[in-house]
Amino acid sequence: MRQSRVLIPTLKETPNGAEAISHQLMLRAGYISQISAGNYAYLPLAYRVLQNIEKIIREEMAKIDAAEILLPGLLPAELWQESGRYDTYGANLFKLQDRHERDFILGPTHEETMTFLVRNVLNSYKKMPKVLYQIQTKYRDEDRPRYGLLRGREFIMKDAYSFTANKEDLDVIFDQMEQAYRNIYDRCHLEYRTILGDNGDMGGSGSKEFSAIAPVGEDTIVYSDVSDYAANLEMATSIIAPNPDQAPKPLEEVSTDHGQTMTDLAALLDINLQQTIKSVAYIADGQPVLVIIRGDFEVNDVKLKNHLHAVDLRLATDDEVIQNFQSVIGFVGPVNLPSDVRLIADLSIDNLANAACGSNVENMQLKNVNASRDYQPEEYTDIRLVKEGELSPDNKGVLQFTRGIEIGHIFKLGTKYSESMHANFLDENGKQKPIIMGSYGIGVSRLLSAIVEQNHDEAGMIWSWDLAPYQVHVVAVNTKDEAQVALAEQLETTLNDEGLSVLYDDRKERPGVKFAESDLLGIPVRITVGKKASDNIVEIKLRQQAESIEVAVDDVEDTIKILLQNND
Amino acid sequence: MRQSRVLIPTLKETPNGAEAISHQLMLRAGYISQISAGNYAYLPLAYRVLQNIEKIIREEMAKIDAAEILLPGLLPAELWQESGRYDTYGANLFKLQDRHERDFILGPTHEETMTFLVRNVLNSYKKMPKVLYQIQTKYRDEDRPRYGLLRGREFIMKDAYSFTANKEDLDVIFDQMEQAYRNIYDRCHLEYRTILGDNGDMGGSGSKEFSAIAPVGEDTIVYSDVSDYAANLEMATSIIAPNPDQAPKPLEEVSTDHGQTMTDLAALLDINLQQTIKSVAYIADGQPVLVIIRGDFEVNDVKLKNHLHAVDLRLATDDEVIQNFQSVIGFVGPVNLPSDVRLIADLSIDNLANAACGSNVENMQLKNVNASRDYQPEEYTDIRLVKEGELSPDNKGVLQFTRGIEIGHIFKLGTKYSESMHANFLDENGKQKPIIMGSYGIGVSRLLSAIVEQNHDEAGMIWSWDLAPYQVHVVAVNTKDEAQVALAEQLETTLNDEGLSVLYDDRKERPGVKFAESDLLGIPVRITVGKKASDNIVEIKLRQQAESIEVAVDDVEDTIKILLQNND
Repeated sequence: MRQSRVLIPTLKETPNGAEAISHQLMLRAGYISQISAGNYAYLPLAYRVLQNIEKIIREEMAKIDAAEILLPGLLPAELWQESGRYDTYGANLFKLQDRHERDFILGPTHEETMTFLVRNVLNSYKKMPKVLYQIQTKYRDEDRPRYGLLRGREFIMKDAYSFTANKEDLDVIFDQMEQAYRNIYDRCHLEYRTILGDNGDMGGSGSKEFSAIAPVGEDTIVYSDVSDYAANLEMATSIIAPNPDQAPKPLEEVSTDHGQTMTDLAALLDINLQQTIKSVAYIADGQPVLVIIRGDFEVNDVKLKNHLHAVDLRLATDDEVIQNFQSVIGFVGPVNLPSDVRLIADLSIDNLANAACGSNVENMQLKNVNASRDYQPEEYTDIRLVKEGELSPDNKGVLQFTRGIEIGHIFKLGTKYSESMHANFLDENGKQKPIIMGSYGIGVSRLLSAIVEQNHDEAGMIWSWDLAPYQVHVVAVNTKDEAQVALAEQLETTLNDEGLSVLYDDRKERPGVKFAESDLLGIPVRITVGKKASDNIVEIKLRQQAESIEVAVDDVEDTIKILLQNND
Repeated sequence: MRQSRVLIPTLKETPNGAEAISHQLMLRAGYISQISAGNYAYLPLAYRVLQNIEKIIREEMAKIDAAEILLPGLLPAELWQESGRYDTYGANLFKLQDRHERDFILGPTHEETMTFLVRNVLNSYKKMPKVLYQIQTKYRDEDRPRYGLLRGREFIMKDAYSFTANKEDLDVIFDQMEQAYRNIYDRCHLEYRTILGDNGDMGGSGSKEFSAIAPVGEDTIVYSDVSDYAANLEMATSIIAPNPDQAPKPLEEVSTDHGQTMTDLAALLDINLQQTIKSVAYIADGQPVLVIIRGDFEVNDVKLKNHLHAVDLRLATDDEVIQNFQSVIGFVGPVNLPSDVRLIADLSIDNLANAACGSNVENMQLKNVNASRDYQPEEYTDIRLVKEGELSPDNKGVLQFTRGIEIGHIFKLGTKYSESMHANFLDENGKQKPIIMGSYGIGVSRLLSAIVEQNHDEAGMIWSWDLAPYQVHVVAVNTKDEAQVALAEQLETTLNDEGLSVLYDDRKERPGVKFAESDLLGIPVRITVGKKASDNIVEIKLRQQAESIEVAVDDVEDTIKILLQNND
């Protein structure tokens, strides 16, 4: 393809407001163009990479017998009213009406539509298992779209859905899908981690999330420096040393003239922070809950919310601390709580003897507080935010933190949607049962950004051979030199005939501009056709290497092959 | 692919409400499934055909150096306010608001977005020509979606746009695009006609429309039985015999006791219908216009509207006939009109002597009316609806009517959008000029229906080799027979390895059901693996032929090749 005919609106300056490096590079290299906040045009180069990614996804889906379909993007509200998500999905759901004032939504995901599609169709165990997927535009009205394609309001997703008659088949397909996803990420040359997912509003019994390592990532990923263990910070667990056995001492009251932080309290009493109890007052679905945790740790709200099965969880207000907990700001503690306050203890409190904490009375702290005698939690459970350096829960290695981009999520949905939407089948015994479902998503357009986040240098992007928008960039140094033009055109034709994709820079630009732009675009192989064109000699350079080598035109293909092999 | 894993929900009965044969067949064969009125799911077989069509389109677009991109479907209202179409496009435009109450639309077409994309980018004649295209989901809130994929509210379109610095380049690209479209339709085995288009609300200087011949088509196509001439009924012209020269006779008044139709008037006066003048009262953008045409013809409203450059054209109400035309219902005529009424004559009136017509006075008709002496049209022009059997305007053959489905439309837009949206470039002389644009559309999902309309029999669809969802259908007659299953699986693998796409019917169904469904699906080649499997003998049958032949497994590929060649 002649570059003069392709739209590649490169920019000399880094555009304002683009924080993520992938966002900056894709704008600068003319890969994407913003149409409105969170809505981008994929320009020719980006679209070719997208198609290469989609090809990989289709190949891996075919391997596990998944069939491709395409559902509408505009969905009748009734479907989402049936599942209940029309009201619970929140402000991210685009809602609209048609000319007859019927309610519609723009699909942010397609569990309901898939369930609608198969109900009354997959009506017998004989018709399952089935796996369907689509590569489709999704709409989510993000409050703060940002980072280019990483968090947009319109994006491309591969979403797959499985329908099985039993849990064993779901488990098989779930594992096949995980392997397919790993293959896809590997073929995209992504460094990623598989982590325990939070099911969020998807429902179901289990999920795994795939996260590409990148500093711009919105998630904190916790992983073992030795084992495969990885989890989102919200789900991560760790091993901490148990509290030492101590004989309980008599409870003491300590007067102070103001409330203390845990560190101040420890200093005041001249004890370790590990000897203090932090008390946090929450309101969970309207009910007061006091959470206690060792003073050197923080509460993990996601774990707490999951533990309580709470729909709405928040910190208590100052008024609520006084009214509902009958306590005082700065002096909250587990002793002498009103009977309707639930007391939940983190595992770090277990066996903690002679601790210091608030007394629920103004200007008084307590010392030598002990469980059973002084307070009684309804249970001890893991609601702790892990810290870097703690032992991995599999006892292999030490936890490290990094940032990650969610690039895939697979869910065992179970019967959440088939039950609410009445998608049933007859089993071997003629008994009606709800279909068992799974849902499996990859953010396809987001992959584009994640790959750029991991594969670039200061000059621009660096694409791998399989993903590159074009594999070879033929650059004619001087387009007024007929020999150069003739040789460049000949190279384009020859390489095209060999099945390589070629971008031919036929533009009347200065060589410096052409070379800089070639680096920016990130095409893996550059062939420079310059003054030695009349001798049938060109220069070949890999994007990833600094040196170029001179070769005879007839040796170009072989040289490319050897260079790529050596570079692998 | 094993058929048991693909979703193909065939129906035994023709579904209610599906009028078009393509709609019936695609529902019955499990190709599509309705999600809401005018919104369909493309199931695995339909989606594979769609991808085959898209592949052909991409190949033809690449040949003319068009670069593929993808624009958002959700578009900010501002873009359409700039062009003016936000208010004029009508009720087909889906409108919505985001969470911040900003106005958006769902794109029914993308002239505005493309213009927005290139403005400030294609800012020099050196950066043109460029041709960009996308294959994308469009949204139009049709009042009456019908005929399945033929008129839906969500559909797939290939829309291309050209940007040139001068009209000569536009003409070149327009012609290249026409040829590309012809190639696409030919490769889809469509019988179609290229017709003069009506620009409608697209603006611009010229257009061509491509129409697939089909009885269900919503357009009437007029074509010559001999030449290439073809046009929509609204645009068609023809040659009619000139009116004979006659010496003018004195004007006569004829009393009647009621208004007459033209036929009644001719009978009353005992003259030919060709000797009468039909007068039709219109209001064009608020102004009264009287149109006269020979009594044996009808006015073509589209031609009239284009001739008048009217935005709003309608028949005058009874009140308006009395008030604005100072006439009487049933007696309207061109003589003695008020001076503010425009009088437009069809060419059929030219040289019409001694005609009969209304007098604008109650219960009186006129005889021997002659132009110049009795009335003076501001001009004679072609505003006539052609009739079957008239001479083709190229004087080659006679006009025939047929029904057609619009499958493509190409427009020379000129500067309509670049002017209203200020997309300018600097020409060779450093002068600012608006970019000259073209827009070129193919209804991709509609093609699917059009192809089925033209390629089916009573048993089901008939797909060509290049478009078929699968090329070969391997049917195991008895899946309990291990020899049959083994041979069928071996065939699937061998043919897949040879690059053929294979659907393998591994289901436990009766042979009769399997064969009937195979015909319904329309896969071009069926290989039946039956009792002779243990002898390595199978049956091969083309979908289009009744007879099957027995062949040894080793000869399957060669036999398919020979059969397909003979069938071409």
